[in-house]
Amino acid sequence: MQPNITSIPILQLASGDVLSLQVYRFQGGTGPKVYLQANLHGAEIVGNAVIHQLLKWLTPLEPHQLNGEIWIVPACNPLATNQRSHYFSTGRFNPYDGKDWNRIFWDYEKETEDLLDFARSHLHLDAETVQRHYRARIQTQFDRLRDKLRSPASAPLSEHYRFHLQSLCLDANYLIDLHSTSNQGLDYLYYFSGREDSAKLFGLDSGILLDRYDGDAFDEAFIKPWLALERCFAQLGREFRFDLEAWTLELGAGMQMNPISVHRGVLGLQNYLIQKKIVQGVVLPQPISKQQMYLTRTSQVKKYYSPYGGMVYPKVALGTSVQQGQVLYQLLIFNKQSYCPTQIEVVAERDGIVYDLASNQAVNTGEYVLATF
Amino acid sequence: MQPNITSIPILQLASGDVLSLQVYRFQGGTGPKVYLQANLHGAEIVGNAVIHQLLKWLTPLEPHQLNGEIWIVPACNPLATNQRSHYFSTGRFNPYDGKDWNRIFWDYEKETEDLLDFARSHLHLDAETVQRHYRARIQTQFDRLRDKLRSPASAPLSEHYRFHLQSLCLDANYLIDLHSTSNQGLDYLYYFSGREDSAKLFGLDSGILLDRYDGDAFDEAFIKPWLALERCFAQLGREFRFDLEAWTLELGAGMQMNPISVHRGVLGLQNYLIQKKIVQGVVLPQPISKQQMYLTRTSQVKKYYSPYGGMVYPKVALGTSVQQGQVLYQLLIFNKQSYCPTQIEVVAERDGIVYDLASNQAVNTGEYVLATF
Amino acid sequence: MQPNITSIPILQLASGDVLSLQVYRFQGGTGPKVYLQANLHGAEIVGNAVIHQLLKWLTPLEPHQLNGEIWIVPACNPLATNQRSHYFSTGRFNPYDGKDWNRIFWDYEKETEDLLDFARSHLHLDAETVQRHYRARIQTQFDRLRDKLRSPASAPLSEHYRFHLQSLCLDANYLIDLHSTSNQGLDYLYYFSGREDSAKLFGLDSGILLDRYDGDAFDEAFIKPWLALERCFAQLGREFRFDLEAWTLELGAGMQMNPISVHRGVLGLQNYLIQKKIVQGVVLPQPISKQQMYLTRTSQVKKYYSPYGGMVYPKVALGTSVQQGQVLYQLLIFNKQSYCPTQIEVVAERDGIVYDLASNQAVNTGEYVLATF
Amino acid sequence: MQPNITSIPILQLASGDVLSLQVYRFQGGTGPKVYLQANLHGAEIVGNAVIHQLLKWLTPLEPHQLNGEIWIVPACNPLATNQRSHYFSTGRFNPYDGKDWNRIFWDYEKETEDLLDFARSHLHLDAETVQRHYRARIQTQFDRLRDKLRSPASAPLSEHYRFHLQSLCLDANYLIDLHSTSNQGLDYLYYFSGREDSAKLFGLDSGILLDRYDGDAFDEAFIKPWLALERCFAQLGREFRFDLEAWTLELGAGMQMNPISVHRGVLGLQNYLIQKKIVQGVVLPQPISKQQMYLTRTSQVKKYYSPYGGMVYPKVALGTSVQQGQVLYQLLIFNKQSYCPTQIEVVAERDGIVYDLASNQAVNTGEYVLATF
Repeated sequence: MQPNITSIPILQLASGDVLSLQVYRFQGGTGPKVYLQANLHGAEIVGNAVIHQLLKWLTPLEPHQLNGEIWIVPACNPLATNQRSHYFSTGRFNPYDGKDWNRIFWDYEKETEDLLDFARSHLHLDAETVQRHYRARIQTQFDRLRDKLRSPASAPLSEHYRFHLQSLCLDANYLIDLHSTSNQGLDYLYYFSGREDSAKLFGLDSGILLDRYDGDAFDEAFIKPWLALERCFAQLGREFRFDLEAWTLELGAGMQMNPISVHRGVLGLQNYLIQKKIVQGVVLPQPISKQQMYLTRTSQVKKYYSPYGGMVYPKVALGTSVQQGQVLYQLLIFNKQSYCPTQIEVVAERDGIVYDLASNQAVNTGEYVLATF
Repeated sequence: MQPNITSIPILQLASGDVLSLQVYRFQGGTGPKVYLQANLHGAEIVGNAVIHQLLKWLTPLEPHQLNGEIWIVPACNPLATNQRSHYFSTGRFNPYDGKDWNRIFWDYEKETEDLLDFARSHLHLDAETVQRHYRARIQTQFDRLRDKLRSPASAPLSEHYRFHLQSLCLDANYLIDLHSTSNQGLDYLYYFSGREDSAKLFGLDSGILLDRYDGDAFDEAFIKPWLALERCFAQLGREFRFDLEAWTLELGAGMQMNPISVHRGVLGLQNYLIQKKIVQGVVLPQPISKQQMYLTRTSQVKKYYSPYGGMVYPKVALGTSVQQGQVLYQLLIFNKQSYCPTQIEVVAERDGIVYDLASNQAVNTGEYVLATF
Repeated sequence: MQPNITSIPILQLASGDVLSLQVYRFQGGTGPKVYLQANLHGAEIVGNAVIHQLLKWLTPLEPHQLNGEIWIVPACNPLATNQRSHYFSTGRFNPYDGKDWNRIFWDYEKETEDLLDFARSHLHLDAETVQRHYRARIQTQFDRLRDKLRSPASAPLSEHYRFHLQSLCLDANYLIDLHSTSNQGLDYLYYFSGREDSAKLFGLDSGILLDRYDGDAFDEAFIKPWLALERCFAQLGREFRFDLEAWTLELGAGMQMNPISVHRGVLGLQNYLIQKKIVQGVVLPQPISKQQMYLTRTSQVKKYYSPYGGMVYPKVALGTSVQQGQVLYQLLIFNKQSYCPTQIEVVAERDGIVYDLASNQAVNTGEYVLATF
Repeated sequence: MQPNITSIPILQLASGDVLSLQVYRFQGGTGPKVYLQANLHGAEIVGNAVIHQLLKWLTPLEPHQLNGEIWIVPACNPLATNQRSHYFSTGRFNPYDGKDWNRIFWDYEKETEDLLDFARSHLHLDAETVQRHYRARIQTQFDRLRDKLRSPASAPLSEHYRFHLQSLCLDANYLIDLHSTSNQGLDYLYYFSGREDSAKLFGLDSGILLDRYDGDAFDEAFIKPWLALERCFAQLGREFRFDLEAWTLELGAGMQMNPISVHRGVLGLQNYLIQKKIVQGVVLPQPISKQQMYLTRTSQVKKYYSPYGGMVYPKVALGTSVQQGQVLYQLLIFNKQSYCPTQIEVVAERDGIVYDLASNQAVNTGEYVLATF
């Protein structure tokens, strides 16, 4: 089953060159739509390798084995992927306005004010109808963004970019965004309220519930309007769960495609597609680990920043369970006066697991060192 | 009258070197406190020249000529001022997290929830008491930020930095932040609700009322809690105006200290200090222009971004009054296919004055070109 | 006469996108080949506007009016043109290795050791034969570069890039590279030994003879092997001048397409093509200024760097004739100790004309301020 | 034995802040002078940890245990150490002119023309006298650089910087510069002609003889004038070896202080100081490995650059011995047309050991992948 492959020009450069998205579409039965992308942040390339494996797994399938459609966009942010400073991939921020590439997306929830009215008027309709009507409202509002882009004043690059990307996935059922840390990190995922059970399908060791938002991330922008509607229905006494899911998978280190992280990502995606009955008649190449998943939440995340400038000696490895008061790192502090370098120890403020470690051990005051969850 | 000059270390670098603020304090009678800073964004150096002139004007004064105190901080963001890429001063964004240096400040209004209660309990007290009580509340809350900075997890650089800067001005009456565009720009100021009359004291041609906020700018963070309290009192039927003001002056081009912009800035500040009776017994070196000030608002600002990548030929100069439909610029568009370059015209969406023009005439899709107000 | 337009992919990005050169070829009689390019450094866009005008002037010509061929490459360095840091075009250095994009070119002279032998063996042959034989030698050596690019170890980006660009012009007779300063600059050109008369055809006010090389610039790499051969012949007693010329035109400010600089560049190119009898039967739209051209040399260029960190007040405008000892700029020096800012004056070390001024008036120790020639 | 600690201001920033060097001097008997520095490139911080250990080892020594003096400069390039782009330390190139911070040093050999005359006139003098006279010549020439720095035109930052650094070590006998790769790398050193035996004292696995120069590196600039004089004497029939050595140690990965690399570096330095009899009466904490050192030369180094843009799957680990034809890496190549991603294999061009691997697996055409020696 060959994918349909198309290219979408998204950005014309001053030089006249054009950067594009390439979209792979596997089209099967009338089932749900899965949207999968990778490399939204420039340094986070691991998902491209995952997609490469997945393309090789999907292509031999017979059409009847696919119930639904799968849209895949590797290297989904060419401007970011190709950004360099020396050898380093520094494509986390838009170079024109400093904005994080994953905090720019259009969130319908922020523009709607009458959500409770909508819920009330749809209180007794079936799920499928509610979903169809709500989706149409979102789509109508989204289409207005195009007018702004086409106006003489047009809009900043990030609004052009997000329009292209969100056009591809606004009508998806399951949206999966493949990331990694920029640093050294564990494999885990972010999930949303009410999706714990599906979270386990990916077979990763840990998951972070987004109970606090940074705002306007790709997964948030997709799912938040639906979670908001679920809350409105709940308020009106109707328990309701849309069959819509959004996932961000974090797979290891930045600028790297660590084979173990790639393998876990591929296996997780395969299992997810099989369990969701989108891919059928296929056996997983190897059984996914059934071990307990460690579930935490963004409000439990603790990030450590250096209190002074200096050189960091980490005293804990990635994956270590630390206890409050345990030494996390030593900081070697040089000075430009007439005394010897000093050294301090920094301890954990609370219990947790070290899930992310800075690649750079030289820090100025306030620079990131590590994080626990 | 010599200023008291102190240095405050604000940031230790990985190398052991330390960056500092230098604060000039002129101390006179028991009048209000003025806080003045420059160069918060790295490219916006013009205010340093303004401060240099002002220091020369203040120093010969006799102590009795100063009713109050004036705190002055030139080069107030050393990390940003010294940032370079090739010859260019690119210090608008924090290199660690991409955040705009003028969107990081602590805003008490965002943390308080019982403002109406406070207003109600102070409804019949005199202005001076209200102001003292409210200031104490802000100060108490602000002091908690220090605890976070000193905790093992500490905080990102921007939280360290803002703490130092806001410590200096939290108790000011009049706060003035000297900026410029990064590009080519007119001389104008930003002002806040209810401060139109004072705005005119600076003698600049134009002023923009902040009726829409970007959020967490230096001037906003200072004045917004007071504006919020004024609104609460208004809601309770008491009209009230605190004698507190915050100003951002925009003085010409980026990376430049244009003599005319400097002169206007100096004269405006001198007149403001004299009219506020902080500096006394001095005659302005030259009368400030009495011409009509053009007042507009942030919601009237229209920014133009390039719809395609190409080379910009501006068709309007800085200061031009344009009408809807008038050609603003031509865009020369190259391509990497087999046809000749094309050229399009971009017109004004609404009437306005061109107050800012990009220094860079090469644009990618969505890159900034010009703005009208 | 429509140009033949082709695109040459030169660089594939990690994202799979490709950056290309676009080449316009006007083909007429059997006369010489002119090669013209613009925007080798990212900020130096003015030449694109010149080329745009020139395309409009060449296209209406009849084939018989063109004696020779003209190859034109606007936006000839897409990677550099599109590089940004904040709003600024910082494409002067390759982001991977820091190398100046105009110091990377392949110079045959550096690889040949038996030039005198070649001259001796060709001492009595006619110019046309010598030129043909020598060109063949250069070409043969150049073709070996392709082998390296295609080997498994391949080569750094700059070697890929230069190969594409030099492939297009190795057999040209007249090579013209359109630049500008990154800063604020006059309009002038660089010329090579023995080409003073042709230099005047461009009608610019000033010209700098390259009597000292930086090494591996585009124009140098083209002409130096021929100048070396001319010197060998001279050594053997035969005076000889190949009809080969290389020019770098500097047209005004960086990131700008100043209309006056564009106009001068266009007129100069038109006159050059007419005087060289490549374009025939056309009258210049306006006579080119006959005024005296100021000729100087790279060894006369004096660049001024700031002795301390501070803010620069220029005391001379672009184009000013300065005398030794004359004040060039004042430097306002802040400190982080307890004394007031200081101010120093910097004077000219020798007589000259100010031809280049830094756009950025904030300088660290050793940062560029201005230059005279 | 406490070191004498001094700070040397080297660079004033536009903001008025000053960056400094801190120098630790251990002064003992009348023996040779050792000069040791670290972190000349911003990302290469490992040497700071080595120095930290060494300071702790030297401080307990009694004065009589030190025969000579040891000068130590950690974080020797503050501008580079503190440079950031996102989280990454990008301080390899001077941000003003793109120059590699380790290709800027003043090399006496390039300025002297009469070296053979000097050798001839000193042919029959004893080594100590020759050394003293030659050193005086170098010093005299070096002092002229100060005049340029102090002239009105002053000089670019890199000339200010190198002057400070070379002032500290011009009269050293043994100079050691602690580096690492910016990427992932083995521990090894660079050595110069005739110094093989001393090279082994550091106990590292591999050494690269500099038989080809990049030019103007710190170690080269120190030792090359002496090697040149040795060659002149050899030419005149006198075999001669000055007791002068220059070393660059490469200790592991960039932005990291890998404990094993640090340990090796410390042990190597301790052994070197003991074997040179500068530190006396101390036993090495552990015997240094006596294994065979692998000696190679810069002309044997083979660097691999990506022939296309894509994602790199390395097929060899750091330290692997590879044979010609062996697969080094696979390249996953995406496209923006309508076909599936492709994959190619890149093989070794010659036998060697993989000693350096790019940290970044996303590559544009011509981007660095790995190197063998």
